[in-house]
Amino acid sequence: MLKLSQLKDLSRQSETKIVLLVIDGLGGLPRPETGKTELETARTPNLDRLASQGICGVTDPVAQGITPGSAPGHLALFGYDPIEFAVGRGILEALGIDFDLKKGDVAARGNFCTVGPKGIVVDRRAGRISTEENAELCKALSRIALSGVELFVVPVREHRFAAIFRGKGLSGDVSDSDPQQVGMAPLTVVPLLPTGDRMASLANEFVARAKSALADRHPANMVLLRGFSQHPDLPSMVDTFKLNPAAIAAYPMYRGLAKLVGMKVLDTGSSIEDEFSTLRQRYGEHDFFFIHVKKTDSAGEDGNFDGKVTVLEEVDGLLPCITDLHPDVIVVTGDHSTPATLKGHSWHPVPLLLYSRWCRPDSVQQFGERACAAGGLGRFPAAEVMPLAMAHALKLAKYGA
Amino acid sequence: MLKLSQLKDLSRQSETKIVLLVIDGLGGLPRPETGKTELETARTPNLDRLASQGICGVTDPVAQGITPGSAPGHLALFGYDPIEFAVGRGILEALGIDFDLKKGDVAARGNFCTVGPKGIVVDRRAGRISTEENAELCKALSRIALSGVELFVVPVREHRFAAIFRGKGLSGDVSDSDPQQVGMAPLTVVPLLPTGDRMASLANEFVARAKSALADRHPANMVLLRGFSQHPDLPSMVDTFKLNPAAIAAYPMYRGLAKLVGMKVLDTGSSIEDEFSTLRQRYGEHDFFFIHVKKTDSAGEDGNFDGKVTVLEEVDGLLPCITDLHPDVIVVTGDHSTPATLKGHSWHPVPLLLYSRWCRPDSVQQFGERACAAGGLGRFPAAEVMPLAMAHALKLAKYGA
Repeated sequence: MLKLSQLKDLSRQSETKIVLLVIDGLGGLPRPETGKTELETARTPNLDRLASQGICGVTDPVAQGITPGSAPGHLALFGYDPIEFAVGRGILEALGIDFDLKKGDVAARGNFCTVGPKGIVVDRRAGRISTEENAELCKALSRIALSGVELFVVPVREHRFAAIFRGKGLSGDVSDSDPQQVGMAPLTVVPLLPTGDRMASLANEFVARAKSALADRHPANMVLLRGFSQHPDLPSMVDTFKLNPAAIAAYPMYRGLAKLVGMKVLDTGSSIEDEFSTLRQRYGEHDFFFIHVKKTDSAGEDGNFDGKVTVLEEVDGLLPCITDLHPDVIVVTGDHSTPATLKGHSWHPVPLLLYSRWCRPDSVQQFGERACAAGGLGRFPAAEVMPLAMAHALKLAKYGA
Repeated sequence: MLKLSQLKDLSRQSETKIVLLVIDGLGGLPRPETGKTELETARTPNLDRLASQGICGVTDPVAQGITPGSAPGHLALFGYDPIEFAVGRGILEALGIDFDLKKGDVAARGNFCTVGPKGIVVDRRAGRISTEENAELCKALSRIALSGVELFVVPVREHRFAAIFRGKGLSGDVSDSDPQQVGMAPLTVVPLLPTGDRMASLANEFVARAKSALADRHPANMVLLRGFSQHPDLPSMVDTFKLNPAAIAAYPMYRGLAKLVGMKVLDTGSSIEDEFSTLRQRYGEHDFFFIHVKKTDSAGEDGNFDGKVTVLEEVDGLLPCITDLHPDVIVVTGDHSTPATLKGHSWHPVPLLLYSRWCRPDSVQQFGERACAAGGLGRFPAAEVMPLAMAHALKLAKYGA
């Protein structure tokens, strides 16, 4: 696999357009009664036609056997080796609430919790306080002044919030204050590397002052922080691939991930139909579109096999909204598998179809796990999807003389 | 591929069990008369059933085109990148005689040889003296006292022995004394790196004193040493994968390799049936079993196509001893190919089948080289077998947020 800097040298701006449709958690496992996966069960005539006209394969988002989180799964599809480039948990939490992160920011996941008179954690979730109370408490905590940094304390849901520290010389190389169990006092944050010294002091100062501020707010009388991480400052897709890329995603975290790699996030609605309409409306303005479909993953996580099948059929029914635009390259794949039988993300490879005037077709006639596994693209790392899409859009120059 | 330290972070202890059956030298080449390999020729209904219920692929132990020795072939299957982790020849020789190596030990392969009056080697194998005479000479050499180190001189077979040096500050970074041809004097051992200084002096001192001790033992009147290497101090599978792993192997070298990666070596007999019985008897005590079948490789090395077929059929007949235990994951593969037509190890990829409740089945119906090459796991590095097995045993947490 080439490095991003090498891909940058080869990338050429051109008029051709690429649409990357990411069906979250696309891959599945057979339902024992029928021996067919969700995708093999769904009636998907449009995807099947595209598969038979294009070329198929399966991807490993990270490596054989490795179950990816959403961030590595998406980074790989955007061309970033997910072992080299990482997005921390705190940063993801901030992205999930559409917080406008800046380079250098350090973010942590926070919980309001309950401590007893001796400071021992008795409830890590403060009885799951309401999101409204959370918002009010966050407002109070936002007033804490820490020397030399800007502090943002932003509610997520129930007892969860994000804390973002903005200033010079910060780093995510610090430990958690969250002991991850009741019966212990919150932990002192310590630097994991010398670069974490300042962040550790600031975090401990914030926790101490939050404790005072919350003293009479039982059950939410303390905070726990974990997953400190820094804005990853990823190379931009604009710069690397010479693209003018746009993201269409109903869920904030995926918009956030797209923003991290330099995509313009387009306003859209909450349904798949809304997302596909946005593509049509904005089709003239960009040469690369990432469209994210979330509900397949949610159904998979819920163990809802039929629900996942229904969403897949909905996507298939709407596919002409994309094909009627005649993009030069259409890639349909997922960021990872989420088999309904496993009720969670899994390590199984992800079906992929690539349609372009310039693909060398294979004999795959159906868009499904087993059909794609026998496809002409073979089994390959998801981080090679972008070079493949760029090549088929004739946007990559020759490597070497 | 993730690093071992990353796999360690993801690995979780659990109740599920993994059985890794290594059929040494499994892969083969077609016999010209039939166009079928050994494995394709053998009647293997049990393996075929498992292949059709599970998922198949082929592995490259080291890399395309590279013929592995036994050590890299096995290290890869145990999860260790064989290009990063190496076991030297001296260490392998010591493992092959069940010598109980300690961390820091340096081992060399030794030959008794014959030198003429001017010290020139005239027979590198001292006329292949008997193993009994070898044992007697080794006893004499063991009495050589070297300052600051313990010395073990252990007979192997005929003219071959192993010399093990135990002490502080040793290193395998030294040259051989064996000139690898007659008509030359034994070479002075020199350090290949500054770390080898002390080992080189000790080796030269040992050789000089062995020469005196053997002066009147013609034809075995001198020794040649080669393959100095240090105990590789590999990360333990216990620590990395959170397993309680056991090895069942009739041949000492494979027990030794298993011990190097932290497996407990179980007592067993010399037949395949003995090995499989040991699995049944000790099944409750461990969550990972490596079972090694040697005779396929021996038959391949001997160019005995039919003999290899017979051993494969024997393994197949005994397979229910494993499947009846209902392990959560069964992996059947080899450490490399040993085609009978080539009479030796080869670079050809190795068939692999993985059976688990959580595998995504493919269309493979037969356990053979060509069938597996079209399997759902594709072609992949053997060092990814452990992550795959761990994933299917639900022992690996999600990578990244």
